[in-house]
Amino acid sequence: MNMTDRKLVVIGGDAAGMSAASKVRREHPEREIVVFERGRHTSYAACGMPYYIAGQIDSAEKLVARAPKVFREKQRIDVRTRHEVVAIDTTNRRVRVRDLDAIREFEESWDDLLIATGAAPIVPDLPNIRAPGVFSLSTLQSGIDVFEDIERHAPRRAVIVGGGYIGIEMAEALLDRDLEVTLIDMAPQLMNTMDPDMADGIAKAMRDAGVELFLEEALKTIETGPDGRVRQLTTDQRRLDADLVILGIGIRPASELAKPAGIELGAAGAIRVDRQMRTSVPNVWAAGDCAESFHIVKEEPTFIALGTVANKHGLVAGINLSGGDVEFPGVLGTAITRFEDLEIARTGLSEKEARDMGIAYRAKTIEALTRSHYFPGAAKIKVKLVVEEGTGRVLGGQIVGRAGAAKRIDTIAAAITARMTAEQVAYLDLAYAPPFSPVWDPVQTAARTLS
Amino acid sequence: MNMTDRKLVVIGGDAAGMSAASKVRREHPEREIVVFERGRHTSYAACGMPYYIAGQIDSAEKLVARAPKVFREKQRIDVRTRHEVVAIDTTNRRVRVRDLDAIREFEESWDDLLIATGAAPIVPDLPNIRAPGVFSLSTLQSGIDVFEDIERHAPRRAVIVGGGYIGIEMAEALLDRDLEVTLIDMAPQLMNTMDPDMADGIAKAMRDAGVELFLEEALKTIETGPDGRVRQLTTDQRRLDADLVILGIGIRPASELAKPAGIELGAAGAIRVDRQMRTSVPNVWAAGDCAESFHIVKEEPTFIALGTVANKHGLVAGINLSGGDVEFPGVLGTAITRFEDLEIARTGLSEKEARDMGIAYRAKTIEALTRSHYFPGAAKIKVKLVVEEGTGRVLGGQIVGRAGAAKRIDTIAAAITARMTAEQVAYLDLAYAPPFSPVWDPVQTAARTLS
Repeated sequence: MNMTDRKLVVIGGDAAGMSAASKVRREHPEREIVVFERGRHTSYAACGMPYYIAGQIDSAEKLVARAPKVFREKQRIDVRTRHEVVAIDTTNRRVRVRDLDAIREFEESWDDLLIATGAAPIVPDLPNIRAPGVFSLSTLQSGIDVFEDIERHAPRRAVIVGGGYIGIEMAEALLDRDLEVTLIDMAPQLMNTMDPDMADGIAKAMRDAGVELFLEEALKTIETGPDGRVRQLTTDQRRLDADLVILGIGIRPASELAKPAGIELGAAGAIRVDRQMRTSVPNVWAAGDCAESFHIVKEEPTFIALGTVANKHGLVAGINLSGGDVEFPGVLGTAITRFEDLEIARTGLSEKEARDMGIAYRAKTIEALTRSHYFPGAAKIKVKLVVEEGTGRVLGGQIVGRAGAAKRIDTIAAAITARMTAEQVAYLDLAYAPPFSPVWDPVQTAARTLS
Repeated sequence: MNMTDRKLVVIGGDAAGMSAASKVRREHPEREIVVFERGRHTSYAACGMPYYIAGQIDSAEKLVARAPKVFREKQRIDVRTRHEVVAIDTTNRRVRVRDLDAIREFEESWDDLLIATGAAPIVPDLPNIRAPGVFSLSTLQSGIDVFEDIERHAPRRAVIVGGGYIGIEMAEALLDRDLEVTLIDMAPQLMNTMDPDMADGIAKAMRDAGVELFLEEALKTIETGPDGRVRQLTTDQRRLDADLVILGIGIRPASELAKPAGIELGAAGAIRVDRQMRTSVPNVWAAGDCAESFHIVKEEPTFIALGTVANKHGLVAGINLSGGDVEFPGVLGTAITRFEDLEIARTGLSEKEARDMGIAYRAKTIEALTRSHYFPGAAKIKVKLVVEEGTGRVLGGQIVGRAGAAKRIDTIAAAITARMTAEQVAYLDLAYAPPFSPVWDPVQTAARTLS
């Protein structure tokens, strides 16, 4: 069969799925492409939801990069929203689809199948975990639900469970909405992808902003009021009044369809893929949060659910589905966020990860300024680097600081990818002028201490 | 002779000279180190002068990283300001020194000599070029002179000659001081280290801010008033009233001492050095703006006068002067500046340079946003990349944009140093969150168009 005659079915209409579908459409203008999306939206910026809830973005529509109608009309991609794929048949090359509005099921054939079902929030198995007022953030609809709940019920006391990216961003958002905010986390630190010396500054900034922070406390019970809405939580230490609860305790790959279909799973239960995004079954591909990635430093498959990675997965899958031949080089776990004006970023291995992997490493944390010390707006920045003992090769970096600090992580990400040593980073020809940096960029100041 | 017994004489007490002297002192606590500095200041941030003149930094003292007294007392480095070295004798290992205050000359012996005399502004040979009200920016004193001239004479109309970094920064500074500002440049564009398509946006921003801009016009005459102060300029096109003139037409290496001493000169008249900062004469070293650098992409010596490079030169010279063994890997000509809120940066080869070198290249310029399109403060950014035809290797990059745009040049600088291709840059794991970047960083969007 000619490649352009091969019918492509995509399960999931967000970043990975629609990136792939769009790429295939550009290469093959006449090919049949069908996308089944369980929700109402396609290609939306889930990362923008906390800022929408905060009121910093005035409409949820703005988070939609491209609506289903646009895909259908402009790109002639047959996007069907509110259609959930419930089973994959790899022998007969069919998927079983549930039309959620018409409440009927049907089968759709495919020649190539791309699974791009994303990730799902982990929800603890507790009574009342789905009571009104208790939310997880995942789909755009979930963000709209939180926004509308705040509008309608005007909650006053929020408890956020989990101090990762979502927890930190939602703390900022809910403070912006004038709620009292408490955050609990089972771990002894926030942001478990960072090392404790870096995470401490984040905790301090949150407490300074009025967030009540309880670390090393686990959620035990959720109690509702007479109206059925959440009213109180208990941890192993205390009772907390709450009329809004945000769960941000982690996500897992939404790979449920794969296993019964005989498609192998890999890291953390994500769908196993090669560097071209092929699964273990011929003509079945996976991309985005449901699929694993190769970790460039760990040199093994890993589960990283991020929009950047999903977009790259989708592009790589799309190129290869169109007869191209590219490989996804892998991930470093680069991530960035902020709490109010405190910027936070990380890439590569943390010190913890290096230690857990049994790597001989050295790590240093330096404090510097984002601009020349005499320049207005010069702000504190902490940079931590982890290098391999002996070779001096940079393995990871973390940054916490004020305006202009965190995007410097990209320099470290590029250096790690290129297998540079700390000495090589120290001598990089980085940009300096007083409004932008000290004469030695803070990344280089950190590198110098390790070279 | 034991290395620690070797007397080190340094000519020039700014970034390169004092970085080297400080490094040697850290390694050799007892070694004799003498620094002769012609001016009154050491280790100052010349790049901060426009912002000091603008009134954004409240004292010139803040630009001094470390004063002579501190070097003398804390580091026991014998820094002698107002002492000008007028000749080098490499046979007998002596320098002839003029004490500018006592008006006497003497000789000083050395075992190792480091020339770190910096660069000097190019001043056209025109009558009245040194009249009151006409300034070049070079030393910290020259910046103080401009500041005091504005305070004392309250000039109203300034003409800046030259549209490079100094010209652009001084235009901002003088607008801040409520002067009427005219800028003339012989070239058809501003910023000759950028390509015309990128420089056009800078010209537009300057005109929008009220700067009168005359390109392709050369300074012809300088006329003074009855008080001897500058009053009017003429170009080949027009007369311009001016009671303050800033010359920013370029700099040359201050390498005058080298040639009569038999020390070889190299690129653009800068002192020839190897990657360890050794000159052609044994035990004579050079570092900073007076010395050439190896250009990583051009793979040949070049003259780049920048504070970052001077600091690295000084560190490398200092390490090697202390018995270490390091090489300076070279430069990319990375530079950054701003005009008001328009940020400007470049690294590696411009399209012009690639063309002049006869390299087969491809270049693309893209427009994107600094943040997610829906996020408050998302601002325009233009990124231009130049890649080698065939290999796709990134040769250079340029960025013009608003808040948060220009420091992204560092990612490109790291990628060029690592000899990455555009495709490799497109797949780098760079940081994304709505307040910091679109999901594809603009650098990657540019890379994708070329991969």
